[in-house]
Amino acid sequence: MHAVEAALKNPARLIHRLVLTENAERRLQDAIGPISVKIERMTPRDLDRVLGSDTVHQGAMLETEPLPEPDWHHLAAASDGRPLIVLDHVTDPHNVGAVLRSSAVFGASGLVMTRRHSPPLNGVLAKSASGALELIPVALVANLSRALDELKSAGFAIVGLAGEAEHAIEELDWSRPTALVMGSEGKGLRDLTRKTCDKLVRISTDGPVASLNVSNAAAIALYAAMLARRR
Amino acid sequence: MHAVEAALKNPARLIHRLVLTENAERRLQDAIGPISVKIERMTPRDLDRVLGSDTVHQGAMLETEPLPEPDWHHLAAASDGRPLIVLDHVTDPHNVGAVLRSSAVFGASGLVMTRRHSPPLNGVLAKSASGALELIPVALVANLSRALDELKSAGFAIVGLAGEAEHAIEELDWSRPTALVMGSEGKGLRDLTRKTCDKLVRISTDGPVASLNVSNAAAIALYAAMLARRR
Repeated sequence: MHAVEAALKNPARLIHRLVLTENAERRLQDAIGPISVKIERMTPRDLDRVLGSDTVHQGAMLETEPLPEPDWHHLAAASDGRPLIVLDHVTDPHNVGAVLRSSAVFGASGLVMTRRHSPPLNGVLAKSASGALELIPVALVANLSRALDELKSAGFAIVGLAGEAEHAIEELDWSRPTALVMGSEGKGLRDLTRKTCDKLVRISTDGPVASLNVSNAAAIALYAAMLARRR
Repeated sequence: MHAVEAALKNPARLIHRLVLTENAERRLQDAIGPISVKIERMTPRDLDRVLGSDTVHQGAMLETEPLPEPDWHHLAAASDGRPLIVLDHVTDPHNVGAVLRSSAVFGASGLVMTRRHSPPLNGVLAKSASGALELIPVALVANLSRALDELKSAGFAIVGLAGEAEHAIEELDWSRPTALVMGSEGKGLRDLTRKTCDKLVRISTDGPVASLNVSNAAAIALYAAMLARRR
């Protein structure tokens, strides 16, 4: 419901189809007032059938056009001390959605992922993002290391997050536009991605386990960048 | 596999039954060497049937006794600047597992939850915790506000995490034993829990969205406490 609400409130969203149960329509109207899009009414049972019985929904389904993608120079100009998050083959939609949500909480200038080996920008991801999909510009690229080279040309420092890095993220200078690259949980950064980074940093830890899940690592990195901006 | 591996390595774990597929047995032996517990061999298909076809597993099932629960005075004495995490009706096992994992990464002295309205300490939770269930003492209580009163008597400051709090977590003095109380995502802290807290703090944010998911909020709070210990 929250994801649908946020999308309807976003003037940049081109809506194709809005399906609501009677209850969902009432709740949505309570939340955002009159709905200017044509509503297709469905019973919860029929909606289950359309979405698949395993899909957890709250009686709302929205079909939309993806949002326009940002370009690197625009992202660099708009960064203002906020990191650009780059995900290297992070495939779990819950994790990517949670990264978007943390991005909207602590301030990220955008998110870059590969078009393949990333979850689609809908459904589970949109729900985990809890509205943040409308707020954080997302760019999908065919080739990540080429995209990182383009980001370098646009003025970004490319910083990879890696547990074995010598420098801690707390020492990082965030004053120039910074793209923070994070790998998947099992595999970390791919070799070519790692080589393309200007620098590697690690998150400081103080316990018997060293590795965070990727959404928690992203939240900590964004929080560390926010603390640095405030200093 | 990681959760089973960690449990087998923990001498405090009383093992009732270990079921492994052929592949899982090989992988486990590669990871921890000879296994001193009796192994029950099962085909992947039979294990699917035992665990339920929706359960994602890696060919391993372990039945164990829960670990002994810590007492408050022991937790207070062992805290050493590390927060005790208290969850107030957080029901999602992925979230609680992730909180345990972050607790083992950034240092928490333990975890307190209510016996009811909390997920069981097994299966999905153990997997999300990725071995941390063996490392972080967990206490399950019948009545949370009574437990908080007992923690006060044992010397703990009771600090609730709430978005609308006046003080930021970055200002908190962690030098005395501190229990950090976090509510569920939708509802936050319950009224009685909130009233029992000595103090409320919020996590500073810098973006259009204010609310984190509970596992990310716990990770940030534990990280903030670690930064304070290092200062």
